[in-house]
Amino acid sequence: MKRVSLSKAECPVARSLDAIGDWWTLLIVRDAFDGVRRFGAFQKNLGIARGMLTARLKEMVERGVMTVTPASDGTAYQEYVLTEKGRDLFAVVVALRQWGEAHLYAPGEPHSTLVARATEQRVGRLQVRAANGRPLRWDDTEVRTLKASPGGSVAKPTGRPRRVPRTPRSTK
Amino acid sequence: MKRVSLSKAECPVARSLDAIGDWWTLLIVRDAFDGVRRFGAFQKNLGIARGMLTARLKEMVERGVMTVTPASDGTAYQEYVLTEKGRDLFAVVVALRQWGEAHLYAPGEPHSTLVARATEQRVGRLQVRAANGRPLRWDDTEVRTLKASPGGSVAKPTGRPRRVPRTPRSTK
Repeated sequence: MKRVSLSKAECPVARSLDAIGDWWTLLIVRDAFDGVRRFGAFQKNLGIARGMLTARLKEMVERGVMTVTPASDGTAYQEYVLTEKGRDLFAVVVALRQWGEAHLYAPGEPHSTLVARATEQRVGRLQVRAANGRPLRWDDTEVRTLKASPGGSVAKPTGRPRRVPRTPRSTK
Repeated sequence: MKRVSLSKAECPVARSLDAIGDWWTLLIVRDAFDGVRRFGAFQKNLGIARGMLTARLKEMVERGVMTVTPASDGTAYQEYVLTEKGRDLFAVVVALRQWGEAHLYAPGEPHSTLVARATEQRVGRLQVRAANGRPLRWDDTEVRTLKASPGGSVAKPTGRPRRVPRTPRSTK
């Protein structure tokens, strides 16, 4: 896969995608959220080649997404644990899960679910909100690029204003 | 990049990653949210090779993420517009943006921001919540795999319970 480096991008979306690298990273993070800690367990869960997993884990440690600790049971194994930076990918993983749940399964087709431990109820759908908590649709928002943002207020719409007409969105 | 097919995965995270394919897709979606509609404009913004962009857009149309429409100005151009399925990737793009903003910029390093049009204020941080609206940390949640989920209630913890000890998380 041809990759353009986005590590210096002004856009945090691009910089995040660059830092994450490829899908394996997010699948490893997903498994770590589920309690997987050891190389062999990641390998078994993911069906990933040893060399690929070694490279991904090394990169994740270098980037501060995971850290290596001695085994929690006193054996000689190393364990891989999410850092706070890694745990902060939780919303990314949940957003991917919910998009898949909504759009990639046939009606009635079973899939795993994410529940609140306390209630066994499925977690709510992620909602983008304004600073005051008001729900925002995608077209209630706009990206402010650097040229326009230093002062915080914008005299006129910037770089790439949304030219998409506001169309009714089906309720769901 | 070696890819294992995850299109039949029980895990919606894996199935989403498979459906999205690679980072280009999310960068194209990001640009579409910003109002980009034409092949040449995507190409210019992304610095992507023509053949790669053609393949990605074709795949996105086939997967129902984008649709092709006649140009809005009456010219012979085709335009690419997000479907509802594509627009539903908004939370994924915002989650990636917010992770990058929090962790991938040096203090004071500028980046683009996502604001509510109505107020020019930056959107709030995405928060995973229970069905009743209560905020949930990652370790307040748990994945229920298929074997345990059909009845909706679970007799004992399933497949991959989280064995990570609950550690204090710094407030931020």
